[in-house]
Amino acid sequence: LIAQADRTTLLVAARAVIATARQVTLAHQANGFKAWTKADASVVTDADLAVESSIRDSLAERFPDHGVQGEEFPAVNPEADFQWITDPIDGTISFSRGIPLYGTILGLYYRGEPVVGVIDHPGLDRCYSAAAGLGAFCDERRLALRDLGPDDAVEGEVIGTGDRSQFLKVERGDAFDALPHHHPRVRTYADCFGHTLACEGALGAMVDFGLRTWDLAASRLLIEEAGGKYALVQQVAAPDGTMLFGVILGRPKVVDWLLPYFA
Amino acid sequence: LIAQADRTTLLVAARAVIATARQVTLAHQANGFKAWTKADASVVTDADLAVESSIRDSLAERFPDHGVQGEEFPAVNPEADFQWITDPIDGTISFSRGIPLYGTILGLYYRGEPVVGVIDHPGLDRCYSAAAGLGAFCDERRLALRDLGPDDAVEGEVIGTGDRSQFLKVERGDAFDALPHHHPRVRTYADCFGHTLACEGALGAMVDFGLRTWDLAASRLLIEEAGGKYALVQQVAAPDGTMLFGVILGRPKVVDWLLPYFA
Repeated sequence: LIAQADRTTLLVAARAVIATARQVTLAHQANGFKAWTKADASVVTDADLAVESSIRDSLAERFPDHGVQGEEFPAVNPEADFQWITDPIDGTISFSRGIPLYGTILGLYYRGEPVVGVIDHPGLDRCYSAAAGLGAFCDERRLALRDLGPDDAVEGEVIGTGDRSQFLKVERGDAFDALPHHHPRVRTYADCFGHTLACEGALGAMVDFGLRTWDLAASRLLIEEAGGKYALVQQVAAPDGTMLFGVILGRPKVVDWLLPYFA
Repeated sequence: LIAQADRTTLLVAARAVIATARQVTLAHQANGFKAWTKADASVVTDADLAVESSIRDSLAERFPDHGVQGEEFPAVNPEADFQWITDPIDGTISFSRGIPLYGTILGLYYRGEPVVGVIDHPGLDRCYSAAAGLGAFCDERRLALRDLGPDDAVEGEVIGTGDRSQFLKVERGDAFDALPHHHPRVRTYADCFGHTLACEGALGAMVDFGLRTWDLAASRLLIEEAGGKYALVQQVAAPDGTMLFGVILGRPKVVDWLLPYFA
């Protein structure tokens, strides 16, 4: 579909866009920011707006014909074949309190198929990136997920989940509450940090519900290019009409073990 | 009891000991390590042993008459007035899987009273330290916890907890399971990472049970010197005779709000 040389160029461009955005994020973390509550009750800060503006400016300069969709501003070129999707600060609750596990998400799609995915963690100085057919990376280190072998127990893995409030949004609170009764090592790793831990193999799998399109802009490509499995297990319309997604991603056998509890 | 100049010297020494230990930790993280299960079913790695050896060697060179207690080796000078207590890698499950939220804990006590406390996060490049009467710090930045004001809701804070398995050990699983029904933002932040987040004010409070002496070697001094509150809410003997502790630490009003659920 897209030549390998072009995919490489697009990956390099996405990482450059994210590197510029990271400086905006860190400046707001260091110098302070304003936070307020949006109509949908989610928290936003002027850092979210500044980081998304930085990403949009960088993309407009490099790819003026591409589409851009983000959480905070209207879509640009919505009919274009190439669509960038971004969440400037995923984990605003963490960011606004000084928990360094938030991230910036950027994904590129060509006619709906993922081409490039990046999740950057400015507070951890770690950037995860992938391009279709070219592998997944943490900074320059190639990720290679190992699936469970015949002697490996699912119980030995750590299972990550999003916040309970995300599961309540889509009526999966019961499954969230039940999971620790089925598995001994369940931890909440809210937001995209749980996704990148799954891509590392640090978690056996991550279970996350109540997500919007931009929360998931990079996850499928990252986990699949790392050698893992991505399962979309829920897709429902929120009261305001936006779609909310539920996903499980990680080592294939751990994802398969979790599916019956959430599918 | 101990002159300010001496406390300053002891704080500087503790940070130097920890800085040396950090290099040992990071070398094992980078180069690989062996892990096995101990008699008490907890996981240990050769990194735990090497880091504790580094700390013991550094302390023996500087303070040959001081006592040292650690998780992995027998006590040294158990009758001395000055006692160092260390957990070389708190969060071995995280360390062994590449979750960068583990830490090294070192505390100094004089006749049972805390003098110096350090929690280092090698994977985050952050070192938290405090000395009695001299304040608490993240690297060189002084920590100053703000308590909730009259208009601040406890519900606006994030509450951190240890792993559910830690609560089950001491029959507080019911309280762990109930907490998210009383508060909308409960997250597991296992091990000492939850303690340092509480010292930052990133969490309203951290609730942690099933802890040994060395898990808590630095937490009380760090939170109190940061302006927060430390509540010891449980003290029970494990089947093998070791004492297990339950604590809540954080902003005073959030700790007070949590006490009835766990006291």
